[in-house]
Amino acid sequence: MREELCCLRERMQKESVNAYLIMTDDFHGSEYVGDYFKSREYISGFTGSAGTLLVRKDCAGLWTDGRYFLQAETQLAGSGITLFRSGQPGVPDLEDYLVEQLADGQTLGFDGRCVMAGYARKLRERLEQKGVRIRNDLDLVGDVWPDRPALSKEPVWPLAERYAGIGVKDKLAEVRQILHKKKADWFLLASLEDICWLLNVRGNDVACTPVVLSYLMMGRDQVFWYVQREAVPEPVQTDLQEAGVVLREYGQIYEDVSRLPGGVRLLCDENHVNDALISRIAPDVVVLDGENPTLLLKAVKNPVEVANEKAAHIKDGIAVTRFIYWLKTRVGREEITEMSAAARLEMFRREQEDYLEPSFYPILAYGPHGAIVHYSADETSDVLLEPEGFLLADTGGHYMEGTTDITRTIALGPLTEEQKEMYTTVLKAHIRLADAVFLQGAAGVSLDVLARTPLWERGLDYNHGTGHGVGYLLSVHEGPNSFRFRPSAVRGGDHVMKEGMITSDEPGIYLEGKFGVRLENLLVCAAKQTNSYGTFLGFEPLTMVPFDRDAILWDALSEKELRWLAAYHQKVYESLAPHLSEEERQWLRETTEIPDRR
Amino acid sequence: MREELCCLRERMQKESVNAYLIMTDDFHGSEYVGDYFKSREYISGFTGSAGTLLVRKDCAGLWTDGRYFLQAETQLAGSGITLFRSGQPGVPDLEDYLVEQLADGQTLGFDGRCVMAGYARKLRERLEQKGVRIRNDLDLVGDVWPDRPALSKEPVWPLAERYAGIGVKDKLAEVRQILHKKKADWFLLASLEDICWLLNVRGNDVACTPVVLSYLMMGRDQVFWYVQREAVPEPVQTDLQEAGVVLREYGQIYEDVSRLPGGVRLLCDENHVNDALISRIAPDVVVLDGENPTLLLKAVKNPVEVANEKAAHIKDGIAVTRFIYWLKTRVGREEITEMSAAARLEMFRREQEDYLEPSFYPILAYGPHGAIVHYSADETSDVLLEPEGFLLADTGGHYMEGTTDITRTIALGPLTEEQKEMYTTVLKAHIRLADAVFLQGAAGVSLDVLARTPLWERGLDYNHGTGHGVGYLLSVHEGPNSFRFRPSAVRGGDHVMKEGMITSDEPGIYLEGKFGVRLENLLVCAAKQTNSYGTFLGFEPLTMVPFDRDAILWDALSEKELRWLAAYHQKVYESLAPHLSEEERQWLRETTEIPDRR
Repeated sequence: MREELCCLRERMQKESVNAYLIMTDDFHGSEYVGDYFKSREYISGFTGSAGTLLVRKDCAGLWTDGRYFLQAETQLAGSGITLFRSGQPGVPDLEDYLVEQLADGQTLGFDGRCVMAGYARKLRERLEQKGVRIRNDLDLVGDVWPDRPALSKEPVWPLAERYAGIGVKDKLAEVRQILHKKKADWFLLASLEDICWLLNVRGNDVACTPVVLSYLMMGRDQVFWYVQREAVPEPVQTDLQEAGVVLREYGQIYEDVSRLPGGVRLLCDENHVNDALISRIAPDVVVLDGENPTLLLKAVKNPVEVANEKAAHIKDGIAVTRFIYWLKTRVGREEITEMSAAARLEMFRREQEDYLEPSFYPILAYGPHGAIVHYSADETSDVLLEPEGFLLADTGGHYMEGTTDITRTIALGPLTEEQKEMYTTVLKAHIRLADAVFLQGAAGVSLDVLARTPLWERGLDYNHGTGHGVGYLLSVHEGPNSFRFRPSAVRGGDHVMKEGMITSDEPGIYLEGKFGVRLENLLVCAAKQTNSYGTFLGFEPLTMVPFDRDAILWDALSEKELRWLAAYHQKVYESLAPHLSEEERQWLRETTEIPDRR
Repeated sequence: MREELCCLRERMQKESVNAYLIMTDDFHGSEYVGDYFKSREYISGFTGSAGTLLVRKDCAGLWTDGRYFLQAETQLAGSGITLFRSGQPGVPDLEDYLVEQLADGQTLGFDGRCVMAGYARKLRERLEQKGVRIRNDLDLVGDVWPDRPALSKEPVWPLAERYAGIGVKDKLAEVRQILHKKKADWFLLASLEDICWLLNVRGNDVACTPVVLSYLMMGRDQVFWYVQREAVPEPVQTDLQEAGVVLREYGQIYEDVSRLPGGVRLLCDENHVNDALISRIAPDVVVLDGENPTLLLKAVKNPVEVANEKAAHIKDGIAVTRFIYWLKTRVGREEITEMSAAARLEMFRREQEDYLEPSFYPILAYGPHGAIVHYSADETSDVLLEPEGFLLADTGGHYMEGTTDITRTIALGPLTEEQKEMYTTVLKAHIRLADAVFLQGAAGVSLDVLARTPLWERGLDYNHGTGHGVGYLLSVHEGPNSFRFRPSAVRGGDHVMKEGMITSDEPGIYLEGKFGVRLENLLVCAAKQTNSYGTFLGFEPLTMVPFDRDAILWDALSEKELRWLAAYHQKVYESLAPHLSEEERQWLRETTEIPDRR
């Protein structure tokens, strides 16, 4: 039994809490969290990036998904914590479990700062009608964690207008117009990517996402930025003050929110504001729950951002293309593993000017590992790369000019016929979506089928979306745009695709125990023509890395698919060739050649 | 100035009403309405099937859409009523106009029985904050219409279980399960198609839709059917009583609804219940606004219904195929017009056993008329058919075994290259959707792009959905399934496509002043295979009529499209040949042949 768990139970007893819930979120619902927030890991010992821990007097359970079953089993062994395999048949989901297990008069506790308000509301609706009391003011892990790491306070830095494209004043004015339309007096923003986008600042408080721990509240005339002031250099403070932004202490938001006068109309998105903060709002404030106005403004990249992204993707293309060449010429001759290959790719990226850091934890998955969608190599799983079969490499980087996310499946040597067939099928899927032409008004859900059809016709599928939005030097997973075939269950969840949105196109095929193929480019949405029917849109690939001709069955591609591939490969060659060595360039020329069908 | 308009204004003055609104709806929001409900036509003289009239003291306006601009101009000339061309630049929509024109203290009146509650609520929200009073209890047209036709009271007839597939008791049990899940005590249903589906009855109170004017209210144990009792023959009454259905007088619903006790949870769909009825509900009744549970149950046809529909479509196929042959062999030799051709087609349908009536007003549009999407020939527009170019024929019928809706564009003689190109493009669009394979979970919005891509790639489009759901011997336009590319703005509006749903597939191209092409089959959704990825669905065409080989550019079809067409034509031939004359059969054999590409 883990000692940390015992200590927590003692604290629970003192507070008369029957069940204590520990999520993986930070105060802002970020995708990755800083060390300060790793409470669930501290108590359970489970280090995966997703999971929820529920501790009761005599039992404890950890809910996590298929990516982490093996890891969680190992890490939870002997801990006294039961693993609940989410999504498996017969495994209750956490909410149902709470409703079933907790009795009238019992108390469920959690730290409301680390639970988003929308989720907490759902819990309350279901549990309070059973007579279960909910306390959201308990950071019990904090109480029993003597050497808890400090809250991150990394230096804030400004994103110059030549990168951001639009100044802070103009962005604030745009948001104010939307507030005016919605008749909102105040707007409360807790999503870190949205705040950094709005203020043209970046930081380093969250892994893989260059953001700053902070909150923001703005009204018709005022803007308050709640941030650890020591982290903000003087010049940044001065610039922001000029734009009308007033700095306040990070924690001060809780009091300020509680002082909003009755009748005021406050816009906030309860799925992206924590429960503790929402709880502080007086009951006579009119809370307008709705999407953050910054969400769509941030997703539609301006022309400066798009031009920068193109530059970033050429840099990234050079790094990844060099890596592929290096891999193809070295594998089998020297000892390369999944992890050492990832390190080598990171080195190639570091050689590029203005490269900052990875945009997510790299996935380099060899052979059967490629069939595990979210595989992440560690010391125990790491394997030697052999000169045969596929290496699936899904990686990305942050540059000053933007964020990349690319997957290539690389033939390390001879392939089976099945491997080539699957690669070609995924390539067809990728091309069909990339080559789409559509009338303005279509959403991601209207287009996803283009990618899936080549698989569906063969009775195949991939159990993930075809693509996600990508931020500019922010989160690599960004809404509201995406490609998936199931309509959104959320109100207004299927956003129309707009010129300037950047979305990944990453279909895949995963054959368990054998191999996986995924092929991913980032696409920027661009106008094609306007006529009496409306404006027709399409996509331009940002990613500049060749597909693997060693894996393509040319005859399976249609004329149209071949034309797209030829044009893409030509652009890749033209973009990268000037930056490569003679030897690399020669290889790139050969590898980007498309056979003449006649 | 129309006398009817003057009389209405006098009544308005007596009631101190400043503006009076007349919609086109009946008490149930039906697509077509009976003569009793043609108040707007009575006052304005405008006979189109869509339009809203607003009468004020010194002015009056009629809002209608592009289909009716010419007709309305003619019919409104000298009436004192201004035509508002909906959707044209600079033309305010009715709601905005009301908000702008009506002043604080003024009164807007309407007959709340003919305005759906959802629309009335929107009007109230906007007008009451301006201080405009709304009265929904005024049937002022009724007051000044001396010879108003009586409310239709056509005989009700039962739909036997060999047609309906499921008995009334089982249907009621299914609905009750849903009410139980939603914790609803009562369910109020005013949509005529849903009521007739639920009670396995049909009638004749609404043009083109064999339904019965009635309301229904059901609880955990009771079912009340509010209907003009004289219209229900004794045996039908007995059968329904056995299923637990109690008959009450049609108008009694208004009082019964007002007597629901406080605290009761009442499910109803405010977009399909009229405002007068909703207004009668006591304020302490909990109204659960939501989709009618019957909507989805009705849309998913059971195996008996599907088998019947196939039989109905063979009958319809015989009629339409004979018509096409007749047309192709007679046109240019005898005098045939759009209207006389429509009458001839109706005769062919009448020759089929168990044919009842047209399922909508037929569209037979020759030459440039084909480019008018909702063209309907009348004495002034009717033209002679010449032995050249296209006749677009969009028609359908009700049979005991189900409802049909088919569009064929028929070459009456030589075609231009452009005509063939457009026909072939529309055919490609039609086939791509008909030939789709998709994983369960996709909705119409996820699939529509398959049909549009061949047009979008050429910078073309059609300004309508690709398809709509079709009822079983009910409305030819039925929700919730449809094919369109814009995500629904309505909560949960994009329903997942399910096995047994029947949807039309009807892309088109309309070149103004030249011609139009539309090709429509009804498709039934059917399971293809189930494997570890889930259940794959596809479509089976119900419609059995050949496409026009005189209009097809064979080389423009892909191998896959050609395969689909060959299989379809073979099935058409096999289904129809036994029922045709030797001469017709010989022609069908030739016309269904697909050239061998090699």
